[in-house]
Amino acid sequence: LQSITIRRPDDWHVHFRQGEMLANMVPLTSRHFKRARVMPNTDPPILTGAQALIYHGEIMAVAPAGFETKMTIKVVPETTPAIVREAFGLGIDAGKLYPDGVTTLSANGVRDFKALSPVFAEMEKLGMVLCLHGEDPGEDVFCLDREERFLKTLQWILDKFQGLKVVMEHLSTAEAVYVVEHFPTKNLAATVTPHHLENTLNDVIDGGLRPHHYCKPIAKRPEDRDRLIRAVTRLGQTKFFLGTDSAPHYRESKECDCGAAGVFTAPLALPLLAQIFEENGALGQLEAFTSVNGANFYGLPLNEETITLVREPWTVPDEYSGVVPLRAGKEIRWQVASDLG
Amino acid sequence: LQSITIRRPDDWHVHFRQGEMLANMVPLTSRHFKRARVMPNTDPPILTGAQALIYHGEIMAVAPAGFETKMTIKVVPETTPAIVREAFGLGIDAGKLYPDGVTTLSANGVRDFKALSPVFAEMEKLGMVLCLHGEDPGEDVFCLDREERFLKTLQWILDKFQGLKVVMEHLSTAEAVYVVEHFPTKNLAATVTPHHLENTLNDVIDGGLRPHHYCKPIAKRPEDRDRLIRAVTRLGQTKFFLGTDSAPHYRESKECDCGAAGVFTAPLALPLLAQIFEENGALGQLEAFTSVNGANFYGLPLNEETITLVREPWTVPDEYSGVVPLRAGKEIRWQVASDLG
Repeated sequence: LQSITIRRPDDWHVHFRQGEMLANMVPLTSRHFKRARVMPNTDPPILTGAQALIYHGEIMAVAPAGFETKMTIKVVPETTPAIVREAFGLGIDAGKLYPDGVTTLSANGVRDFKALSPVFAEMEKLGMVLCLHGEDPGEDVFCLDREERFLKTLQWILDKFQGLKVVMEHLSTAEAVYVVEHFPTKNLAATVTPHHLENTLNDVIDGGLRPHHYCKPIAKRPEDRDRLIRAVTRLGQTKFFLGTDSAPHYRESKECDCGAAGVFTAPLALPLLAQIFEENGALGQLEAFTSVNGANFYGLPLNEETITLVREPWTVPDEYSGVVPLRAGKEIRWQVASDLG
Repeated sequence: LQSITIRRPDDWHVHFRQGEMLANMVPLTSRHFKRARVMPNTDPPILTGAQALIYHGEIMAVAPAGFETKMTIKVVPETTPAIVREAFGLGIDAGKLYPDGVTTLSANGVRDFKALSPVFAEMEKLGMVLCLHGEDPGEDVFCLDREERFLKTLQWILDKFQGLKVVMEHLSTAEAVYVVEHFPTKNLAATVTPHHLENTLNDVIDGGLRPHHYCKPIAKRPEDRDRLIRAVTRLGQTKFFLGTDSAPHYRESKECDCGAAGVFTAPLALPLLAQIFEENGALGQLEAFTSVNGANFYGLPLNEETITLVREPWTVPDEYSGVVPLRAGKEIRWQVASDLG
């Protein structure tokens, strides 16, 4: 197989940041993706529909024609049903919830999930999707256990709000994969990132400390990574779709005494996924993961445009506008045809 | 209790490095410690008795009167019984073995332990101590499992060379503590570092990526740390003693895209240990750990000099000659009396 053509992909979880970073990042996503769900953990955060619209305008100002965003508001302890209702009325179809302190710009996040019951009930009623950073923020929780420990909170939400659509973002453990695979309704789905299909904790801390491999949730054991690969490559799977969680930080914010969490993958996500799917004999399942399951879950039309990937090795650049990407300086065997020099 | 006076401690595992770093580091150890066992993973490494003597001379040139070193040679695949014999004849009483690639400057280390049988047999015959960095270097081994996976190699060495004295350095797991505690003879002992009594993996990767907390073996789970604390603070324990593994790296070698492993603790090791032992109701057991068990294991006289620690809070400096210490900028409740301003 020397090339594959698939429906143009969507990225259901991406960080564009603000200002100059935003201007540099949007084109790197729009080059390969038709649509992107944009995370609201800017500084200050996107807390209302009006703020999401302003942010949307900033993105559109630097995006090429044809690129579409799906905006999110950040669900925080202060979020009310009225805020949710107003945002939904303005076309915002999802809210992202960060437990307190679990990742970049998640301070003042949620600790008391039950207190948000009126908000969840309103989202359920409206058909607004709840996107979860699924990690238990407890101070006494061991870092590698945060996702598994969050599953009881997830179960509580799903039990209590049986009509609510929930996305567990950036899965990192076999336990979470199991829960998503076995959930009996179509209301629960999950995104998976390219870096969680590629790295384990060894890539972060074993051969020197690697800030550009550092993200939340942290990469786990080889068994976890392999379980994620099996989940996304399984023939006919519908519950897992691509959210790159491409999360750019300038080099100085990573290579310092307290490095920021986030792996930048936007320009290489698709080529790397082709390589991973090929290595697992599953190139035929790539399109479902990148271009079908997410749109179906969100109730959106499938993209009619296509994209072609060719088996033509290239070397990932060392930097994109001051941001070090995953696999910097390393080769990837596939690339997007339109990127060929 | 406002002050304690104990026999002057020894540090049975320290890295002094070379050149300017060496000149800066030796006085920071000699200020509190009477003796130090100096690690041989310099660049180039210390492979013979003659090289150890030269290195000893470099250390003495910058050390105050009264400070003593115990030198080590590095046991590598090329080490021979003749090299060991010659080193022992020159007064070198220990050899340090690094499995291949497990930590700073451990490239070209050991993979084939059985091939070193003649060397181990010679060390056994001479009464030369084998100091082990106990981590399995296998490429497929998960980082958090390396120490536990090494225990079968340790068992093989102890079974095969029943007269050989072995130190498992810088223990990091409950499993390794168990093996040391339950070993039936006095030939096996272990060093424990202050940072493994203080940190868990959360301190390295949970609240941002923290290069100055990054070491090998990597800090593990809270249960492992707590097990280490129980081992070193137990009344009457004789098998565990202090080896700080104080391992200075310049800030630039830590805060970069592939940070070096090593935590620098020389100037704060004793105050921090007093705090940890006090928190665990075990100040009375501090002296055995810092000043008695190691000398006994190595068959050396106990130090007659004493040192006094007082409960007087101080703040750890942000840097010592370009090296960021553990707990930089944070308070420690105890200090060495002679450091009082």
